[in-house]
Amino acid sequence: MADGHFEVRAVGRVESPLLDRAGAPRQGDEGGPDAWLAFDPAVERALADLAVGQEVLLLTWLDRADREVLAVRPRGERSRPETGVFATRSPDRPNPIGLHRVTILAVDGLRIRVSDLEAVDGTPVLDVKPVLGRRDER
Amino acid sequence: MADGHFEVRAVGRVESPLLDRAGAPRQGDEGGPDAWLAFDPAVERALADLAVGQEVLLLTWLDRADREVLAVRPRGERSRPETGVFATRSPDRPNPIGLHRVTILAVDGLRIRVSDLEAVDGTPVLDVKPVLGRRDER
Repeated sequence: MADGHFEVRAVGRVESPLLDRAGAPRQGDEGGPDAWLAFDPAVERALADLAVGQEVLLLTWLDRADREVLAVRPRGERSRPETGVFATRSPDRPNPIGLHRVTILAVDGLRIRVSDLEAVDGTPVLDVKPVLGRRDER
Repeated sequence: MADGHFEVRAVGRVESPLLDRAGAPRQGDEGGPDAWLAFDPAVERALADLAVGQEVLLLTWLDRADREVLAVRPRGERSRPETGVFATRSPDRPNPIGLHRVTILAVDGLRIRVSDLEAVDGTPVLDVKPVLGRRDER
């Protein structure tokens, strides 16, 4: 890797009824469907303590994104001024990492079902992190 | 890139008085210092709408992390059971992407000062995203 370049690796994939960006809501809480996350057997140990009911942050690689875009009209609305992408949630940005807050609905071995996910079918999964609770419960 | 492997690129670097992991707090709200983010001129347009007072999510590449680790004792406490890393905020994980909720304290061209950041000096910055507000204010 050249200086400042790093390699991320898919640890799983999204399995969703959403087949393309045009049909996807802009955020998970705006009508994202439930979806399965199918993980690679190599990360089975990393998954072991995820449980139904937990709220987690899912990080994905938005592989349909345009990485050359630096400014957009928020939510695609032509009436809004062009805005630098770091002040927006546009998937088009230099490092198109998706961040999704979801709830775990089911756990079945290497497959985890989550609520309200706007990522499309086949999206690579990079990471899962717990939502941080109260400081004295960490 | 091989299938399932993707390249992320630093868009900036953290400038912090924290020089190594041993001296860093475990989370930003546990005593993380204020720090500067120094961005690459290539992403100047992407930064343009960040402003003092905004709360943002900063994504970093935790380049000192051990990517082979799949389970840890949370917070390094030997009394706690080994836990799969996807249920922890350990920096050691397959894709060591740091997620930090910070407030913008100052903006000076390509440099942005933020509060409460536990990332160490030199940590590559990958992305900045706004915290999502109310649905009718997006």
